Amino acid sequence: MNLRYYLPTRVIAGKGCIVANAPLLAKLGGRALVMTGKASAKKNGSERDVIAALESQGIAYSLFDGVEPNPDVANCRAAAALARMFKADFIVGVGGGSPLDAAKAAALLARNDLSDAEVFRNDYRNAALPVVAVPTTAGTGSEVTQYAILTNDSIESKSSISWEGCFPVLAFLDSAYTATLSHRTAVNTALDALSHAVEGYLAVKSDGWSRALAYEAMRAFGKTLPRLADGFYGGDLRAELLLAANMAGAVIAQTATTIVHAMGYSLTYFKNIDHGRANGLLLAPYLDFVVAANPEGVREVLAAVGCRDLEAFDDLLGDLLGERETISPDEIRRFTAIALKTKHVGNTARSPEESDIKSLYAKGLRPL
Amino acid sequence: MNLRYYLPTRVIAGKGCIVANAPLLAKLGGRALVMTGKASAKKNGSERDVIAALESQGIAYSLFDGVEPNPDVANCRAAAALARMFKADFIVGVGGGSPLDAAKAAALLARNDLSDAEVFRNDYRNAALPVVAVPTTAGTGSEVTQYAILTNDSIESKSSISWEGCFPVLAFLDSAYTATLSHRTAVNTALDALSHAVEGYLAVKSDGWSRALAYEAMRAFGKTLPRLADGFYGGDLRAELLLAANMAGAVIAQTATTIVHAMGYSLTYFKNIDHGRANGLLLAPYLDFVVAANPEGVREVLAAVGCRDLEAFDDLLGDLLGERETISPDEIRRFTAIALKTKHVGNTARSPEESDIKSLYAKGLRPL
Repeated sequence: MNLRYYLPTRVIAGKGCIVANAPLLAKLGGRALVMTGKASAKKNGSERDVIAALESQGIAYSLFDGVEPNPDVANCRAAAALARMFKADFIVGVGGGSPLDAAKAAALLARNDLSDAEVFRNDYRNAALPVVAVPTTAGTGSEVTQYAILTNDSIESKSSISWEGCFPVLAFLDSAYTATLSHRTAVNTALDALSHAVEGYLAVKSDGWSRALAYEAMRAFGKTLPRLADGFYGGDLRAELLLAANMAGAVIAQTATTIVHAMGYSLTYFKNIDHGRANGLLLAPYLDFVVAANPEGVREVLAAVGCRDLEAFDDLLGDLLGERETISPDEIRRFTAIALKTKHVGNTARSPEESDIKSLYAKGLRPL
Repeated sequence: MNLRYYLPTRVIAGKGCIVANAPLLAKLGGRALVMTGKASAKKNGSERDVIAALESQGIAYSLFDGVEPNPDVANCRAAAALARMFKADFIVGVGGGSPLDAAKAAALLARNDLSDAEVFRNDYRNAALPVVAVPTTAGTGSEVTQYAILTNDSIESKSSISWEGCFPVLAFLDSAYTATLSHRTAVNTALDALSHAVEGYLAVKSDGWSRALAYEAMRAFGKTLPRLADGFYGGDLRAELLLAANMAGAVIAQTATTIVHAMGYSLTYFKNIDHGRANGLLLAPYLDFVVAANPEGVREVLAAVGCRDLEAFDDLLGDLLGERETISPDEIRRFTAIALKTKHVGNTARSPEESDIKSLYAKGLRPL
């Protein structure tokens, strides 16, 4: 029994929780940088609540609403420069995975002068600025991870910062902010979170603590995903999804992800397939692949999500995914070469060879 | 969905984990106070390993091996005085719940001048010294809680310090140290941990995070307790028990305990019944009591521990408990009056009246 568990983030969930807990923000300092994407934080009410909470405590703030989807280092540098200029004591990241990860990277860059090559070294001289995370999708779980995943053109994929200094100090979960998501985005982000729970449960690095959180998250997805597939998206369902995604994030904070994520990055980078959807496309073929190495673990996954067998799991995902994208032989060849080089291979319960990865792409998408 | 989760302790488990992770101790300073009970830390090897780890980092240490069973404030003051005299930067608590809770209280008292009345106010001026916790029983889970539970003669029971500053910064779980426990102590401490998981799962304050940890802990107890009742106590079993007790501790850090613990304190204070055994005596009657208020929750508890019904659960506990202690009508009356005054009543899924508590005592013990 070897195990390491560490999650210093304070998680607070509930309707109106940001404003109700505003005094916790005052403990972080008197000046805040608020980081969001272009539009959704304004539409879903999260930006308004964050600003109300800051104002209630007399905290001065500056707004950076230029976080791009799948942000790169340059995008984060711009925010870090503003944080320095404004002398921010802390950063509030508001949005889906992109603004939250960008907030962590900006918090790091605001306190450390790093070349592009140094950004992903996971060894930094100075503590990052404290980060407060307000997720507005039920997906990445970034609010409770030490990861910041950024687009990295130099390797034509995504690269991760993985550093304990990147754990947010506070995460506020208010499912009011996920009400305005499109059905497509709600599904894609849920698929991302489901993938975290399933991958984490079966990861080589899985242990008792991560299994506990993964199992409960999978139980919650088992109850919620069929209703989501039927088009239901009420307040209770959204709250359950947000909490399940949060626990699934805590899972990968302990276990990291596996070949599914490594393979998905190419689908996003080269084919612009949404990150969560990319994982969802590959998840059923992946379970079918690892069952030979860990039949008991796969049985427990199926029991937790309430599927009687692998086919039922494939059907559930099929309902959520709809028609699958095509993939060419050349794409399969190129993406496989990239995935094989990642550390995710070694964290997968059954270590995939080149032919296995090709087969997973072919089963997850529609080969041309 | 209202939820708060916060557990800043870094948990590290595995054979030899203290010595292997000694550099983490050096980050806490150059002078340590080591606190243990009279004998067991010497017998089970934990004291030796802690000292080896400290010496490997050049950390000066002083040893306080005078923690009493069910320690009171005076006992903790003595250790705090030594910590001040020695100018300790941090405290390492080694042992069962008593040394760990005493270490937390001493860490608080070393930095704060408090009258006896002020000790339990949960509001202190100065941060406590950092505490490293090394549990040598699989029971209290104190290594991951903010509680220090001390004997309080002024109310003829136990009182809790409950303060976030008391969370240990580090917890080392090495099941080598539980190998020398008597079967009786192994059973009693396991009953304490089981009670934490079950009470926490059904507590009014329970939520998604605590349910996840409680469910996994109960699954582990379902696998391990029948073997423990059969007298088995091998290395794998001990490791599973230690981890389950750890997760159950994290559960009550979030949910606190319920009427079972409140009732058990009198059995310990007045009748000298071991703390874990006291909870174990009351646990089956308690489940039978709350089923009316939360039948689904009780069903999930039984499923997790692998018992087909309440009777099977009662049988499992009966195997572990053996012959039950007697209790007089006068004791029932007095203990009930004490339990009714506690905040635990309000955290119990079905709020107990005076007659309910009397009935629970009568069912859990042998009325005279």
